[in-house]
Amino acid sequence: MSFTAVELIEIKRDGGALSAEAIEWLIRAYTDGTVTDYQMAAMAMAILLNGMTVDELAAWTEAMLYSGDVMDFSDIPAPKVDKHSTGGVGDKISIPLVPLVAACGIAVPMISGRGLAYTGGTLDKLESIPGFTTRLEPNRFRSILIEHGMVLAGASETMVPADRKLYELRDATGTVPSIPLIASSIMSKKLAEGLDGLLLDVKTGSGASIKDLEDSRALARTMVGIGTRHGVETVALITSMDQPLGHEVGNANEVRESLDVLRGVGPEDVTELTLAFGEEMLGLAGIDGGRDRLREAIDSGAALQKLIEVTIAHGGDPAVIENPDLLPSCANEIVVEADRDGYVTRCDALTIGIAATRLGAGRERKEDSIDPGVGITLQAKVGDRVTAGMPLARVRYSDQGRWEAQRDLLASAWSIEDDVPPAQKLIIERIGESDGI
Amino acid sequence: MSFTAVELIEIKRDGGALSAEAIEWLIRAYTDGTVTDYQMAAMAMAILLNGMTVDELAAWTEAMLYSGDVMDFSDIPAPKVDKHSTGGVGDKISIPLVPLVAACGIAVPMISGRGLAYTGGTLDKLESIPGFTTRLEPNRFRSILIEHGMVLAGASETMVPADRKLYELRDATGTVPSIPLIASSIMSKKLAEGLDGLLLDVKTGSGASIKDLEDSRALARTMVGIGTRHGVETVALITSMDQPLGHEVGNANEVRESLDVLRGVGPEDVTELTLAFGEEMLGLAGIDGGRDRLREAIDSGAALQKLIEVTIAHGGDPAVIENPDLLPSCANEIVVEADRDGYVTRCDALTIGIAATRLGAGRERKEDSIDPGVGITLQAKVGDRVTAGMPLARVRYSDQGRWEAQRDLLASAWSIEDDVPPAQKLIIERIGESDGI
Repeated sequence: MSFTAVELIEIKRDGGALSAEAIEWLIRAYTDGTVTDYQMAAMAMAILLNGMTVDELAAWTEAMLYSGDVMDFSDIPAPKVDKHSTGGVGDKISIPLVPLVAACGIAVPMISGRGLAYTGGTLDKLESIPGFTTRLEPNRFRSILIEHGMVLAGASETMVPADRKLYELRDATGTVPSIPLIASSIMSKKLAEGLDGLLLDVKTGSGASIKDLEDSRALARTMVGIGTRHGVETVALITSMDQPLGHEVGNANEVRESLDVLRGVGPEDVTELTLAFGEEMLGLAGIDGGRDRLREAIDSGAALQKLIEVTIAHGGDPAVIENPDLLPSCANEIVVEADRDGYVTRCDALTIGIAATRLGAGRERKEDSIDPGVGITLQAKVGDRVTAGMPLARVRYSDQGRWEAQRDLLASAWSIEDDVPPAQKLIIERIGESDGI
Repeated sequence: MSFTAVELIEIKRDGGALSAEAIEWLIRAYTDGTVTDYQMAAMAMAILLNGMTVDELAAWTEAMLYSGDVMDFSDIPAPKVDKHSTGGVGDKISIPLVPLVAACGIAVPMISGRGLAYTGGTLDKLESIPGFTTRLEPNRFRSILIEHGMVLAGASETMVPADRKLYELRDATGTVPSIPLIASSIMSKKLAEGLDGLLLDVKTGSGASIKDLEDSRALARTMVGIGTRHGVETVALITSMDQPLGHEVGNANEVRESLDVLRGVGPEDVTELTLAFGEEMLGLAGIDGGRDRLREAIDSGAALQKLIEVTIAHGGDPAVIENPDLLPSCANEIVVEADRDGYVTRCDALTIGIAATRLGAGRERKEDSIDPGVGITLQAKVGDRVTAGMPLARVRYSDQGRWEAQRDLLASAWSIEDDVPPAQKLIIERIGESDGI
């Protein structure tokens, strides 16, 4: 069947629903250039404002998924399970988590992303390991996965091309925060990985792309529904992103903190999320033993050994895993101090994420390059008691002018008050198969 | 001040209002290409769905107006008054109206348009007069206006470039039917003409671009408000476009019918609208005498003489004005017959407009060329008594295949029933300065 872009835009504009055939045509025609960027931009805004039905969303995700190559790992006997996070500040969980669950017998074919806006990207963090490449040919991707039970790379040019094109367009047209567009973007990429199970970490709070809990819940339920309908067992955990995860925000320093987790000496929140996610992934893989098995893989050094092996397979220098002091670090260090006595009641993820990005830890524009040695080490987080003059954070940076420009912004991330703040929950909610829409 | 396209799109997306500075920046940046088509497409959809405040609309219109050259005819002593129609089927009113009011002492610097979709365009109709050119250099435009008190041309490349760009974009992105975008598009073009007064003919009904009376009223009030705030006395008449105006739909045949009006033998509806509009325009110009003066200009032949003069000034052959049989006409003629006895209760403007366009009287795509000799002559309109076999219309066409393809569609334009239909009002409502928003 053939359609015109205008007639389909008009249907969505007027609050109607598009047929599966229409959506399939639209995504194909957009991928090959028959439908222009400006037509898709109008469509994206109409979707953002008027929404999508469950049937439309299923067809949209399917059409994106099949716009390019879909991986098939059915010949690999191990259960294929992946995790995806909607992105946050200090979110390095994938780095300890993937070798940990791989050491427990799961195969993880993780396609990951780069930092954008104020959130970091797993690929950028891994690339602070000298030599580590995340650009892999499909055959190399497969062979690392078969040999090591895990692989961590960027998407190839031929995977989900419709999403790559649409994601850039949404970024430039104010059409990012649409639950159906976010859900179909994430799920089309993850479903192209040929998985048996998928764990979704849906961040909520100031440093998350979706800040409102109700919206985060809707996104989680929507993605679980898509995965389930597609035959991939999917679970979502809604987790707090009001303050950064762990103490480290940056790239090389986040790898260093990840190694601490694999050595059993990581900060409590990062360790707890890593174990909770690992437990869910083992559950999705049908592997018994849960948390005990994960602890054993840490205590025995098996998980760390897995990361060393995989680092070598990716061309990286394993010496930095053994000795994290070899990881890059900027020469200049400065301390942000508390200006009064009291309890930290706020340590704002968004503010810290923006400051870190502007110091060079992230990208403000796609073409920006990252300085892996830039990092912020948080020394006081929510609930901590501080006295005036105590360090709230240590900042490593290379450019004095950039630091001067961010000093006040970064200091504004903390609130210190007289009363102890209420405890924050790390995992807010679990959305299982029966909660999906 | 400087802005980014994304931040402005986000404001409008989230239901906010843009500042005048933001709108000025946006229109300028879109005109010079800093803001891309895809960003403007997202903005247009957000405007269509979320609307604009009165202040935003004023700033938007102003920014469009000053995106290019604005004419200044303050040195011409005669009152400058123009008319604009939102477009309909068989709407040739400008052709008799402009020479008629010019003969009464008004200067009419009319910038007109071409047919698009199923509605005809005044420029296309005039160009069925051999030699008549509607492409005029600004100096030539001015000198014809000074000498003859009227001029009828297309917009130059340097007038309202933002509107030209945006109009094409809206056409390709399903963002045409937005009242603020329609109103600002029309008014920015009309305000660039340096007018003292403006009469707006807002069509409503099946053959109008805005079909719903409530929406037509909102558009009329919006445009009157813009004109008034800009110091141009503005009146809108909401007129019926359920059936075509007059008996002729096409190009050369519509010129022929226009000449009948100037000879005092035009069909009742076209004559009545021409006189009613003329009366309003004389009123806007502060010229006494009203309808009597208009009738006199017809009866004395002054109005027809004005059209002859102006045709010569535009390079056209005046012989066709004297002898309309010289106007182009296709060789093939066929009759559409009534299939039963009764009263015509429906003679659908939209259906007839589409059939005429597809026969070659209009453009389905911008690059299509027009056949001036294609025409539909309506022989039965709403309220007429017909018997089976009587002609409903005569169709002149050149391509037999095209005719076969439109035969059933055209025949479906008429409904014939037993009971006399209620009389239809030609002018539904008048929106004066105090009704503007």
